[in-house]
Amino acid sequence: MDNSLLPFFRPRGVVVIGASTAPEKLGYGVARNLVQGGYAGAIHFIGQRTGTLFEHPLYTDLSQIPDPVDLAILIVPPQATPQTIAVCGQRGIHAAIIMSSGFREVGEEGAALERQCVEAARAHGVRLLGPNCIGTLDTHLPLDTTFLQPPMPAAGHIGFISHSGAFCAAIIDWARGKGFGFSQIVSLGNQADVNETDVLPMLAADEHTRVIVMYLEGIADGQRFVQIASEVTQRKPVIALKVGRFEAGQKAAASHTGALAASDTAFDAAFYKAGVLRAETAEQMFDWARALENCPLPRTSIRLQAATHPSVQGGIAILTNAGGPGVIAADALEHHGLTLALLGESTRAALSAELPPAASVRNPVDMLASASPAQYATCLNLLLADETVDGVMVILPPPPMFKAEDIAEAMIPLIRASDKPVVIALMGSTLVETARSRFENSQVPIYPFPERAASALGALSRRAEFIERKRHEEPQSILPQSFRLRGSIDDLLLEYGIPTAPIRLARNADEAATLAEELGFPVVMKIASPDISHKSDVGGVMLNLQNQAQVREGYARMLERVCAARPEAQIDGIHLQRQIPQGQEVIVGMVRDPQFGPLMMIGSGGVEVEGLKDVAFGLAPLDQAEAREMLRKTWAGRKLRGFRNIPPADEESVVDVLVRLSHLSMQNDDIAEIEINPLRVLDRGAVAVDVRVQFGSFGGSHAS
Amino acid sequence: MDNSLLPFFRPRGVVVIGASTAPEKLGYGVARNLVQGGYAGAIHFIGQRTGTLFEHPLYTDLSQIPDPVDLAILIVPPQATPQTIAVCGQRGIHAAIIMSSGFREVGEEGAALERQCVEAARAHGVRLLGPNCIGTLDTHLPLDTTFLQPPMPAAGHIGFISHSGAFCAAIIDWARGKGFGFSQIVSLGNQADVNETDVLPMLAADEHTRVIVMYLEGIADGQRFVQIASEVTQRKPVIALKVGRFEAGQKAAASHTGALAASDTAFDAAFYKAGVLRAETAEQMFDWARALENCPLPRTSIRLQAATHPSVQGGIAILTNAGGPGVIAADALEHHGLTLALLGESTRAALSAELPPAASVRNPVDMLASASPAQYATCLNLLLADETVDGVMVILPPPPMFKAEDIAEAMIPLIRASDKPVVIALMGSTLVETARSRFENSQVPIYPFPERAASALGALSRRAEFIERKRHEEPQSILPQSFRLRGSIDDLLLEYGIPTAPIRLARNADEAATLAEELGFPVVMKIASPDISHKSDVGGVMLNLQNQAQVREGYARMLERVCAARPEAQIDGIHLQRQIPQGQEVIVGMVRDPQFGPLMMIGSGGVEVEGLKDVAFGLAPLDQAEAREMLRKTWAGRKLRGFRNIPPADEESVVDVLVRLSHLSMQNDDIAEIEINPLRVLDRGAVAVDVRVQFGSFGGSHAS
Repeated sequence: MDNSLLPFFRPRGVVVIGASTAPEKLGYGVARNLVQGGYAGAIHFIGQRTGTLFEHPLYTDLSQIPDPVDLAILIVPPQATPQTIAVCGQRGIHAAIIMSSGFREVGEEGAALERQCVEAARAHGVRLLGPNCIGTLDTHLPLDTTFLQPPMPAAGHIGFISHSGAFCAAIIDWARGKGFGFSQIVSLGNQADVNETDVLPMLAADEHTRVIVMYLEGIADGQRFVQIASEVTQRKPVIALKVGRFEAGQKAAASHTGALAASDTAFDAAFYKAGVLRAETAEQMFDWARALENCPLPRTSIRLQAATHPSVQGGIAILTNAGGPGVIAADALEHHGLTLALLGESTRAALSAELPPAASVRNPVDMLASASPAQYATCLNLLLADETVDGVMVILPPPPMFKAEDIAEAMIPLIRASDKPVVIALMGSTLVETARSRFENSQVPIYPFPERAASALGALSRRAEFIERKRHEEPQSILPQSFRLRGSIDDLLLEYGIPTAPIRLARNADEAATLAEELGFPVVMKIASPDISHKSDVGGVMLNLQNQAQVREGYARMLERVCAARPEAQIDGIHLQRQIPQGQEVIVGMVRDPQFGPLMMIGSGGVEVEGLKDVAFGLAPLDQAEAREMLRKTWAGRKLRGFRNIPPADEESVVDVLVRLSHLSMQNDDIAEIEINPLRVLDRGAVAVDVRVQFGSFGGSHAS
Repeated sequence: MDNSLLPFFRPRGVVVIGASTAPEKLGYGVARNLVQGGYAGAIHFIGQRTGTLFEHPLYTDLSQIPDPVDLAILIVPPQATPQTIAVCGQRGIHAAIIMSSGFREVGEEGAALERQCVEAARAHGVRLLGPNCIGTLDTHLPLDTTFLQPPMPAAGHIGFISHSGAFCAAIIDWARGKGFGFSQIVSLGNQADVNETDVLPMLAADEHTRVIVMYLEGIADGQRFVQIASEVTQRKPVIALKVGRFEAGQKAAASHTGALAASDTAFDAAFYKAGVLRAETAEQMFDWARALENCPLPRTSIRLQAATHPSVQGGIAILTNAGGPGVIAADALEHHGLTLALLGESTRAALSAELPPAASVRNPVDMLASASPAQYATCLNLLLADETVDGVMVILPPPPMFKAEDIAEAMIPLIRASDKPVVIALMGSTLVETARSRFENSQVPIYPFPERAASALGALSRRAEFIERKRHEEPQSILPQSFRLRGSIDDLLLEYGIPTAPIRLARNADEAATLAEELGFPVVMKIASPDISHKSDVGGVMLNLQNQAQVREGYARMLERVCAARPEAQIDGIHLQRQIPQGQEVIVGMVRDPQFGPLMMIGSGGVEVEGLKDVAFGLAPLDQAEAREMLRKTWAGRKLRGFRNIPPADEESVVDVLVRLSHLSMQNDDIAEIEINPLRVLDRGAVAVDVRVQFGSFGGSHAS
């Protein structure tokens, strides 16, 4: 946490510079919200004329204002802003929110002004939020520095960081209608100074914030974001909506890895590494946030559980009064990677005793249309008590014979008391209006359809898995110290413990014998000639040479044969390479993302890698668990365990190469792209058969 | 259209059998809705006692009721239902809605009663809807046969067919809150008689129905559904939500094709073939339906357009007053397969003249937060007039300086008058409440977020593409008449014009020479011995034999060599096969779906086909266009056009094989699965190298 940002969040006094008595002005709205929002600290207004505004004196000069004042809100013309920042700094105000627009977003002239703001701020020790933002909101302190129409959003536990002020404004109004609120909101605007990574730990430190949502149009410093977010997500869930994919397009790239890594891939890998849940849509982000705000997490995922309690097959229970919505829910849970709880025998017996004979006591539990408030409550209780149940989705369409609100009332105490998550699919509108209020007032997350409730349960489950994964994280293996590139790629790979099959040129039989001894037997020999493309047709290939004598003899024989067949060809000598046994082949690569650094790839290689797209990405540095997870995402990786008549190969050696290559990539930042294609995977070990490297942004390509 | 179903939809008189004066009874609710719903035909009630109900006489016997009466609503105990159906038939009532539950859904006893209902109905010429359904609704006639709480849903143009009554009830209430209505609703219940395919043409024939949505838990007769739905979708859009995937699981299958075709794959292929849009969620189904109900279709898709008007690059325009939501919209449009319109020079100039300098006049068009009602209207008009614009998404978050409803009012006349679709992302809640009503009352589709608006535009675009595709449909190629399986698989494939490479066994040199002549030169010879697995190691393989003399000589030489190497081995003779040149390889297969018939597959073959999952499915019979579309969905298919150093192969020959195999599959229904793996694709033509067939459900496997 950066203490220089504290004045934005916990100011002892606030001054509005550019306050106005004209209701259509932003300076009026900010003054109104500051006063009416209930801020308990000192409030001061600076305007063009003296007078009063919301029963506070209106000054014309900053020097007239008494202490304490930690935060200034600037609503002054762009041209006047740099000077105003300087004055603030001189007056001992070290935080300023610049609300005005007319900076970088309008062109070069504005960008120059924005740079002047930053210079003034640096010179006078002032931190800046904005420009071109709508300010901040804290519903608990409270503090409202925005000019938005009142009322302030309801107090809640969702912290919201946004690159778009308009999106903030729309979401605040939308949330009001959906019955949920926020703890803090920060609109970042142009981010001349303070950015999304700066404010993230501030919200994480806020006691009222249980979950953080981020609307992002980009990330200022990718590697720093990953580092900070990784720390924050250990304590609080973070959900991101990252937009702007359509602008990205494919970049020109030297390698398959580069061509396959769309720029958005790096964001996926970065969010995954940092434990940030990435939402696909705005609605989904808040669907997830409301569950994470209010629900306990489910027990850790089935997969992780199975290792420790193989007897307990956990899953989600569905409680419904109608079959159709139950089927929709079951499909949706499966779609979001969740399983249905099997339900214990005793649970099923107890449900049977409670329900009519035609009811279904298998999951989904269908109580039938006659289900009463008491039946909803009793059955929910039975499900929550079942050890196979990790969480419950309750489906409540308009009940034909009871009031939905009575059913809500009967369930709410159980839901609030449970240590398992319960989400509600409350289907309908006017007939479930009162029930909706009841649930909202009790902080029980409701969704209009089972599909969205299932998506929220999926987010809870992924969050629980992430926490479990972190708990079991393996220690990093020991790796070489920072190593600067020198000599050949083969040497570099070997230095990092990645076996290669270097190719050496011999100019005579003695040299060939010596090189072969160095490379290790058996070796392959190929004629080295720029004029001969089909080497085997002219006797220019020899396999399986077992010792120096065979190499010497082979050298002479090959030269003789090739010269006879192609007397005109230029012969440079003979290439030697250690002969590598047959095995499965994969591609392993890295492309350096400008935002996030080395982005690692594994998958099906060969010439068809770009067509098959059987590849997975992850952000360096990778640990063993992360690398193994990447392997599991691809067919090439899964196949290493064997499939039909394809024998298994040394999966762990590929994990190892991927981890080592990720460290090589971290420590050699003059390498822009590196690609091993193929990495041949043997019974034991793996060998980089062909390696290509692209240096820097201007460097050339180098093949081993 | 089936005229026997007309009494359900246009009855001259209706009788409720089981009407009740007790408000908690279904028979009371049905009577109430029939009367209060405004049905103009004759209404009659039969109850247990005489009296009056909603000012209509209550009779105790059907014979007391005057004509006309075409439709009976039965709310009688299950045990009494078969007899009541018989009485209805005798009385000349040929349509009955059975609302009661207690039939197939409760077990074997109920199922027996349901069968008795069907027998009684058949015997007396009565069609049945239900049992265990909530009836029908027609908001225009009007006619409400349900027992749901009033009011009836608003009149609209969406026809709704549902397998779940509870889902109907929840959706009716939800739609009321969302401000949209329905033309007709049919709850199908257990479908003892009338099913989803029966009612589909009835709704299609309804003048008030513009779009049909179907909630399906299965399909009674897959092939009939595809046939009927294909006719309906020529005239009206149909959207389906098919649930119950989680119950499906993988079936045991003899071939890769079978293993890869999850049972839900057949539904995908069937909906695609029938032109039915498949929604992923309930909310999406109605998001799409509201757009299809109220919007003109966009001009046909970019891809189809490009052929005829290569100069016009069409797409969607985004009009917004804020950058962030505009970026969200652009991402979402791309996600749904749509492109952004480029906008003409003159449009951009006109937008510039209208908007402040900081506004963006490139797509997304960002008018800035100050955008007035007049600016929204003028800019929308400019976009609609631009020939590069196929449709518009207008984004309206709470405008800081104007009322959202004034902006709505300014745009509505333009939207109603336009022949291009316009959808609104109306973001917020209380601040846009009045605007929401304005749009709803004018049948302009609104969505709470740009992502959902984009999804709706995607559905409009797919509908337009489907209509265009149908317009350009190619005539079916001429194929052999029905052909019953006789002789070998090779013969059958050849009969359908699919080239194979049969293997023949020769027992002596003369026979080998004759067979080779039959097969065509060059040929390959392989030793036929159960004891020898690595044939080439013992000289048991000869390639490229060009004539009978070489075959004769080769036969003798191979026997000699093999006998010398493996004197103990049993030798059956020598296998001959025409030698097929190298080429690309694909898998082509069929698995017969129990619902929809032959499901065709194409993709990357080999032993890894199940792992790579680079396959696409389509429902037989395929035409050339459908087969080509399947090829384009797979890497194996796309690669036939050549890729990097992989030369192109004869793509059209694969299309041809796929089409022919689909016809073979249609006409030989004793074949359960057939798989060509590989089909080798040459410069010209393609050859089935290996073919496997699975007969019937009980038959064995047969390899060529």
